[in-house]
Amino acid sequence: MPHEDCIFCKIIQGEIPSAKVYEDDHVYAFLDISQVTKGHTLVIPKTHTENIYETPAEVAKELFARVPKIANAIKDAYNPVGINLLNNNGKQAYQSVFHLHIHLIPRYGQEDGFSLNWDARPEEYTSEDLQQIASDINANVN
Amino acid sequence: MPHEDCIFCKIIQGEIPSAKVYEDDHVYAFLDISQVTKGHTLVIPKTHTENIYETPAEVAKELFARVPKIANAIKDAYNPVGINLLNNNGKQAYQSVFHLHIHLIPRYGQEDGFSLNWDARPEEYTSEDLQQIASDINANVN
Ligand SMILES: [Zn+2]
Ligand SMILES: [Zn+2]
Repeated sequence: MPHEDCIFCKIIQGEIPSAKVYEDDHVYAFLDISQVTKGHTLVIPKTHTENIYETPAEVAKELFARVPKIANAIKDAYNPVGINLLNNNGKQAYQSVFHLHIHLIPRYGQEDGFSLNWDARPEEYTSEDLQQIASDINANVN
Repeated sequence: MPHEDCIFCKIIQGEIPSAKVYEDDHVYAFLDISQVTKGHTLVIPKTHTENIYETPAEVAKELFARVPKIANAIKDAYNPVGINLLNNNGKQAYQSVFHLHIHLIPRYGQEDGFSLNWDARPEEYTSEDLQQIASDINANVN
């Protein structure tokens, strides 16, 4: 059921125009208007779900099943040097539309509009610390 | 079949130690030793596949089906303000291990070790440009 006031639900319904890349029973894919790089595409489930936390396994499954073929279509169309997939959950994690979406960002080199700040800090954790963290998370898997 | 000289295949086989978060028939999840943020986890398919392009739909499906429950376990363990999911394909897109993996990066604020440079440029593309790009990609969907 479309979620009222969700712009992605409106795009799926055709109430807001989009540059559609792909559509089937489960997913809709269209260009991100910000085009961080050329061919920057969003893949979304037709079922409204706000973020990864609230997404049922069945919806996650059907969504990601289509990602390889859409990634390959971008590769075949534009021959990028790589592709980053990104999914943001939470305002402070850069989520701005609250309908689950996966960004497919084809890459054309180091200075193409997308990059990461990645502060690796392996020295901060002992292997006991890592075992403790893994165990904290594992204890919460339902 | 495990891929020779693949460190993630060796982790799955138990030949290289890891801080295991979750495992079932299809996936293995463990802490990234770089711990860009606390609880930074990698989710990988047990089937060796180099990147998203080469991943069969069946493998993609089973992989992503487990992501919501692992994301929720991280959320329940550490109460982050958000979570970023990231998958890198190609050396120039930050891929360093050539066995498909999804990073789950819990976020604790703006200065927590992870951020994006995101050069949105909607002004560079007319709506005709966008329709052309969408059509170029769509023509390559198999
Ligand atoms: Zn929606
Ligand atoms: Zn492998």
